[in-house]
Amino acid sequence: MNNEIPVISLQRLPIYLNYLKSMPADRAYVSSGHIAEALGMGEVLVRKDLAYTSATGKPRVGYSVAELIAALEDFLCCNGCRNAVIAGAGALGRAVLGYGGFSNYGINVVAAFDTNPEKVGKEIAGKPVYDIADAEREIKKCNAELAVVCVPAQFAQEVADVLISCGIKAILNFAPVLIKAPEGVVVRHIDVAANLAILSSMI
Amino acid sequence: MNNEIPVISLQRLPIYLNYLKSMPADRAYVSSGHIAEALGMGEVLVRKDLAYTSATGKPRVGYSVAELIAALEDFLCCNGCRNAVIAGAGALGRAVLGYGGFSNYGINVVAAFDTNPEKVGKEIAGKPVYDIADAEREIKKCNAELAVVCVPAQFAQEVADVLISCGIKAILNFAPVLIKAPEGVVVRHIDVAANLAILSSMI
Repeated sequence: MNNEIPVISLQRLPIYLNYLKSMPADRAYVSSGHIAEALGMGEVLVRKDLAYTSATGKPRVGYSVAELIAALEDFLCCNGCRNAVIAGAGALGRAVLGYGGFSNYGINVVAAFDTNPEKVGKEIAGKPVYDIADAEREIKKCNAELAVVCVPAQFAQEVADVLISCGIKAILNFAPVLIKAPEGVVVRHIDVAANLAILSSMI
Repeated sequence: MNNEIPVISLQRLPIYLNYLKSMPADRAYVSSGHIAEALGMGEVLVRKDLAYTSATGKPRVGYSVAELIAALEDFLCCNGCRNAVIAGAGALGRAVLGYGGFSNYGINVVAAFDTNPEKVGKEIAGKPVYDIADAEREIKKCNAELAVVCVPAQFAQEVADVLISCGIKAILNFAPVLIKAPEGVVVRHIDVAANLAILSSMI
């Protein structure tokens, strides 16, 4: 789905969506120029990105804010409902479990997996923590397709292999190591230290 | 510094660095083709990215692995030493404080700030938690230039303004809101939910 849009454009859509949602409720229309200026981007770029969605702007008026939000949410599957699981209930896993922002995108974080007997069987932020050995049963039960990997680097590939074998189709990886996945499974990598290093090299 | 490199190339350098460091220690040379294949990238792209560093490959031999690692580390300022502070000692802030990967990039996380009296004055992962009211004194004392913002969305801009007024030059923002910063201060935004939504729209 959404195969035509370049990933680089796709990455900007949540930024537009967040900005539009932050606008005053009585604002009916917004131009691509206004969005571009507010976000420090080029207007042509904004128009090109938004053209991937079903939204259409009107000359001299711009986009209906409500329609543009709906088009972006639709494109980002916010109105569908997908279930996600967290692998690793350490400090980062706990933070992700407690993070409320997923529902904006139609994503439910339903459970976490860990191997630590002190964590298994407990609840974090109201979500159950299961033994990773029960991953297949629990992932099939809740029909989860998304996973966030929050385990140490040395376990990341092994855990990802288990998740994929249980039907997970998309993995967000926080471990500082590349995860290999078969065709049909998408992986995104968030390396916190690398992101800070990139910033550090820019100042 | 490093102004000529496009951000999109800069973002890939830590990926090359991690891959090279994961190679067997007795491997002396590596070709751009080998790196490209291992990471699922185009060879021309890899060669172009690496050309921004001081590394030079030899025809039919490739790059010296040790020299390429050194060139990437040098480019990413890994051998310099920069101090970073964390704003917000909640679950995410704790995870970042306990994360060991920063030292690979020459970054020291030295302290955290919070407003909660139950957290201020304590230590997390051996790092002191200070009152945000003491930010100026503590940031100047340790000469920190980097900050990671781990506070809820509604406080992110306010906290960023304080950090910037204390001399912070680069901010990694985990709050799901855009932070505005004056010229000369760089901001990167990691929106965990948006990243998962992007993945979700790709499957």
